[in-house]
Amino acid sequence: MKLKNSKSVTIPGFKVAGIACGIKASGIKDLALIYSDLPAVAAGVFTKNQVKAPSVTLNETILDQGHPIRAIVVNSGNANACTGKPGMVHCRTVIESVAKHLGIAVNEVLVASTGVIGVPLPVEKILYGLPHLTRHLSSKSWEFAAEGILTTDLVPKMKSVEFTLGKKKISIGGIAKGSGMIAPNMATMLGFLATNASISKAALQKALALAVGDTFNRITVDGECSTNDMVLILANGKADNTEITPGSKAFDQFTEALTAVCRDLSFMIVKDGEGASKFVTILVEGAKSREDAEVLGKRVANSLLVKTALFGADPNWGRIVCALGDAGVSIKPDKVEIAFNGMAIVKDGMPLPDISMAKLKKKMKCREVEIVLNLNLGKASCPTYTCDLSYDYVRINAEYTT
Amino acid sequence: MKLKNSKSVTIPGFKVAGIACGIKASGIKDLALIYSDLPAVAAGVFTKNQVKAPSVTLNETILDQGHPIRAIVVNSGNANACTGKPGMVHCRTVIESVAKHLGIAVNEVLVASTGVIGVPLPVEKILYGLPHLTRHLSSKSWEFAAEGILTTDLVPKMKSVEFTLGKKKISIGGIAKGSGMIAPNMATMLGFLATNASISKAALQKALALAVGDTFNRITVDGECSTNDMVLILANGKADNTEITPGSKAFDQFTEALTAVCRDLSFMIVKDGEGASKFVTILVEGAKSREDAEVLGKRVANSLLVKTALFGADPNWGRIVCALGDAGVSIKPDKVEIAFNGMAIVKDGMPLPDISMAKLKKKMKCREVEIVLNLNLGKASCPTYTCDLSYDYVRINAEYTT
Repeated sequence: MKLKNSKSVTIPGFKVAGIACGIKASGIKDLALIYSDLPAVAAGVFTKNQVKAPSVTLNETILDQGHPIRAIVVNSGNANACTGKPGMVHCRTVIESVAKHLGIAVNEVLVASTGVIGVPLPVEKILYGLPHLTRHLSSKSWEFAAEGILTTDLVPKMKSVEFTLGKKKISIGGIAKGSGMIAPNMATMLGFLATNASISKAALQKALALAVGDTFNRITVDGECSTNDMVLILANGKADNTEITPGSKAFDQFTEALTAVCRDLSFMIVKDGEGASKFVTILVEGAKSREDAEVLGKRVANSLLVKTALFGADPNWGRIVCALGDAGVSIKPDKVEIAFNGMAIVKDGMPLPDISMAKLKKKMKCREVEIVLNLNLGKASCPTYTCDLSYDYVRINAEYTT
Repeated sequence: MKLKNSKSVTIPGFKVAGIACGIKASGIKDLALIYSDLPAVAAGVFTKNQVKAPSVTLNETILDQGHPIRAIVVNSGNANACTGKPGMVHCRTVIESVAKHLGIAVNEVLVASTGVIGVPLPVEKILYGLPHLTRHLSSKSWEFAAEGILTTDLVPKMKSVEFTLGKKKISIGGIAKGSGMIAPNMATMLGFLATNASISKAALQKALALAVGDTFNRITVDGECSTNDMVLILANGKADNTEITPGSKAFDQFTEALTAVCRDLSFMIVKDGEGASKFVTILVEGAKSREDAEVLGKRVANSLLVKTALFGADPNWGRIVCALGDAGVSIKPDKVEIAFNGMAIVKDGMPLPDISMAKLKKKMKCREVEIVLNLNLGKASCPTYTCDLSYDYVRINAEYTT
């Protein structure tokens, strides 16, 4: 399938906005809105953390009702999590105000928050900002919306693709945020996607789950799964294609395109990981099952010793073998093979003789490192995408908040 | 029971030594020996990592045979792990040479290694050093032995206690090493203990398992469980007390004293944790089971976001609640209570009103921080001991090795 990639986003029938309403003391953007001209089919995936923000539980309830959605409102700078009943009241108040300003029903609005946990949401600032936000709605403002949802992120994250379905042009695009508290367990950050495709709710939910499983759920910055994570998608049907249903060829094409958008957005999150200086792919091969490969890849990717070795451009494979042995998955240490950026360094669990350390160290200094771990136990494989752990991660997270 | 505590170690009937044999390029001590005048009952606990160094598998085999032990030889600067069959041959060669120099049987020697993984053991340096090592054996050299087993540790770790059993004076003491790659999963570092008590093998093994379960297994620096971890104890019976057997009052007294030694040694490891600036106790209370409390305590203690917040003296309890919710153990978020150094800050999962941030921040700046997490679900509790994550952890582990 031919995909037309773009770093900017415009989706027919969608208008967006991003403004500063004063939640962030720095005065940068902290409020975003995505609005669909037409009632849109909606789907979402949510954090598996037992501690869920009101925005998560509220959206789950709204999506369960199955009716069309018109808008998503997002604030950054405050997670509105661990805020008890007042937090839920604040969440509803924001939704009601958005609905009023847009002239739509209350149950047509989804909501998300990100930022500090446990601080009451400054709801009056959001209510003050909402008329400005709706006034700024434009089909060309995705970058402003992308800025409005950031916390410790350094860059806004946007991506869109176009492809043809029958004779109709389908666009899928969106924005994401995430830099710390990033680990693969359902949605592990915020992502908001939009498409002009006509697609059934069942097909949209299934396509989103498939796309997220291979992309957002495969990344980790620090092994932390947040209270507010979600990925939402709205499909407004404006492309006027034959409705996509599960199991069709069009479904596969749509899922492929959606996965491409999610992959790029998730990679942007890893590359913008707090303090990250390297983008690292941990590819576990030769596993007995995909689940084994996932667990092992995540264990290696979240190892502090592996992450700091990567920061130091140190090919310290011993730490990798040690992490593999400690993951709770049965392996045969003397069968393990390891390669760094295509250079084999371990076979049968032992270092190969005659490795050029000079050559190896040069490979480790690349900004992108691929580590292939072959267990030689089966045929399953799974990639995990991560970053190194640098001084800046510590600085950012020792200074953030209070 | 009255325990006489000491920071130095002398155990009747034991001689020890520590020297530099050239494994460490820096020329500091890297070889240690513990020798018992009398055949000693021995017990050990070992790493649960599937990737085990030859020293671990060899000791497990020797201890299974059940005969008395006379010596423990330890090198630092090289873990002799992931070194394949040559690694096992090297391990046996060292044991044979120690036995020859001491005039004891080969199966009376235990062995341990710690340092870099995957580099062939420079066995010729150890063999060259052994005659010097045995010549330096002395009952007063425990500090030198403690120095000989260190890697990234900043300080040697020693401790002993004395107590009276009947009319006999019992001494228990030992040394430990550990600074990084420290997480609670059986023994998570090296520890070598000695006692003059007369005790059955079954009682010694049981007492060691109990003591380690409450001490070494409750600490974590970075969530990494190494390939070489072990705690060994030798009991030479020189005190001439009635042999201690499981289930007796004497057994409980011995276990209490042994636990006191292990607790102090394990706390020394946390305080000397790589880059550590704080000693942190995470006490999970009100859990349904001790296992739940262990898992939750470990999850919070290993959270990068919690550790960096502690480094920044930031009372960021939201990160703690987030980690609790992500530990795979069922909790009720709205029942959680949190206190920092005795100051209650969260009740019913929400921040208490009127908290003095100034007072709280002052508490967070203490070198010792106790965080009590009450789940209000049951009566079980468990402490986990950890440290913060600082720039120096990253520096040490980005620079270590190659």
